[in-house]
Amino acid sequence: MTTLKVAAGIDIGGTNCVFGLVDRNGRVLAEDSLSTPGYPNPADFAEAVWKKLISQSGRLKVKAEIAGIGIGAPMGNINKGTIEYPAGLPWKGITPLADLFKSHTDRPVIVTNDANAAAVGEMIYGAAKGMKNFVVLTLGTGLGSGFVVDGRLVYGNDGFAGELGHTTIKPGFSERECGCGKKGCAETYISATGLKRTFVKIMADSLEPCELRKISFDKLDSHMIYEAAVKGDRLAKRAFDYTGRMLGILLADLVAHTSPEAVFLFGGLAAAGSLIFEPAVKSMEENLLHIYRGKVKILPSGIKEKNAAVLGASSLVWAETERT
Amino acid sequence: MTTLKVAAGIDIGGTNCVFGLVDRNGRVLAEDSLSTPGYPNPADFAEAVWKKLISQSGRLKVKAEIAGIGIGAPMGNINKGTIEYPAGLPWKGITPLADLFKSHTDRPVIVTNDANAAAVGEMIYGAAKGMKNFVVLTLGTGLGSGFVVDGRLVYGNDGFAGELGHTTIKPGFSERECGCGKKGCAETYISATGLKRTFVKIMADSLEPCELRKISFDKLDSHMIYEAAVKGDRLAKRAFDYTGRMLGILLADLVAHTSPEAVFLFGGLAAAGSLIFEPAVKSMEENLLHIYRGKVKILPSGIKEKNAAVLGASSLVWAETERT
Repeated sequence: MTTLKVAAGIDIGGTNCVFGLVDRNGRVLAEDSLSTPGYPNPADFAEAVWKKLISQSGRLKVKAEIAGIGIGAPMGNINKGTIEYPAGLPWKGITPLADLFKSHTDRPVIVTNDANAAAVGEMIYGAAKGMKNFVVLTLGTGLGSGFVVDGRLVYGNDGFAGELGHTTIKPGFSERECGCGKKGCAETYISATGLKRTFVKIMADSLEPCELRKISFDKLDSHMIYEAAVKGDRLAKRAFDYTGRMLGILLADLVAHTSPEAVFLFGGLAAAGSLIFEPAVKSMEENLLHIYRGKVKILPSGIKEKNAAVLGASSLVWAETERT
Repeated sequence: MTTLKVAAGIDIGGTNCVFGLVDRNGRVLAEDSLSTPGYPNPADFAEAVWKKLISQSGRLKVKAEIAGIGIGAPMGNINKGTIEYPAGLPWKGITPLADLFKSHTDRPVIVTNDANAAAVGEMIYGAAKGMKNFVVLTLGTGLGSGFVVDGRLVYGNDGFAGELGHTTIKPGFSERECGCGKKGCAETYISATGLKRTFVKIMADSLEPCELRKISFDKLDSHMIYEAAVKGDRLAKRAFDYTGRMLGILLADLVAHTSPEAVFLFGGLAAAGSLIFEPAVKSMEENLLHIYRGKVKILPSGIKEKNAAVLGASSLVWAETERT
């Protein structure tokens, strides 16, 4: 009986932790979850997840060997294997998460943020296979980013490279407050919540009738704005157009930094298709220096939303064990 | 008699081409120049420079072997060894410069822009020795940039990575025209010419007396503004402060991309010292996401201005031949 090498992928969120086992081809063989706040002690958390992974592995139809553990977590530091001052997690200060898992296994344990994990996932399982220079933007509640240069994820000197959500898209010109404490950050415009904020401001300026005027700010979400836009609501379409144009400015900016072959858009906002891609590409081309024009592909992620978090995290293991 | 390995460095500008031979420690053993417009045919240019390099080598007191040729040139494409549509050079379209030199030598020939060459020069001879992740900004007539990630210069997919001068620092909010055809580009603010444009606008808004009101726009240069600021001229000091704050925004942005250990400032504007460094660092820290604050060093280049162009270009040879 041959042994199948599998990678464990763990995605840690404020309410849930999802984890599972994935083979080299990106098939999710097992997936489960637990409540993150249920483990105020991170050592207990690591032990619980590890036991469940072993149990998952034992239930597979083939003999499996866990080749390593990849972890996606907010403020995950890939150089140190730590989580540092994460907002929304029960563990305060600096948590040595890789070390806690290494007390259970001698396999590699890699920790980074979810957007960096998504970038590696795109390279290992997704639409960036074979690409050496690309960027992944995750357009969800926030705006995350992961850079790959010469086939390797950019870590940066401190392990925290790739935080485009907190570049300032309108320095000194925006009152839009960001959760990070600054104003005018890119993610206050280019994200599902950014779209909502933009939509509500457009609605407030306009006198045009709109079904969504009946919905409170708290209840409104980007999916409702998407549905309205698809039905032809002009305010919703304007919100997508504005958001896309802001995204285009960000794209032109990042191209001038690392000149990628492609940028992949992942997450809820990217699922809006041409509503977001069209204004984004148009605005990017307008803002690009001439030498870059017409060269950079803006593409949807090749990773399905379902299981994406576990897939991205697990891919870190293959990237590490196959690193030359 | 032992043979000394030397690198040839060639810096191609619109009026002059400077070239010379440099040893591994960054000593410039020979330097000479010729008129670039004097060679409308790039093959003649390559032959003339090569012959002069051979002649330089023959005149050295030791037996020397040219280990390779590094070339810094506007629109130099490091992937292809070409110069592509450079403004201000006599050669139109795409010039296969590396191939033209390779018809004279079988050693490596590397072509890139002067800012990328400056970044490699900083790593090989300068203040970035031993650093794996850093950025060099060249603050001269324009704003150039070179990124080093994991000890290697970032080329990008198309060989043109690192054009921060043409990121848009005030998207949609600036009427300041850039030579590239766009408006509001970073280099229209953060460069010697950007400082001058800022100074003249501040002077026009103010009624304060100032010696520089006697100088025409064409005759005014950044050095005069520097001298005025040192003497206490308040308008000149405000221009430096504004320029430094814009630089700080750019620095915060680039840190969020690749999270470098240090950013080195090179060129005329950087020579203004605390007049530019102080507002830049303050503004960078204000605009940084908290995880990066207090971590990134903003430093003057360790390469002397004299011979800098030849040094930077020559360093490409050592980076290439020692690449692991």
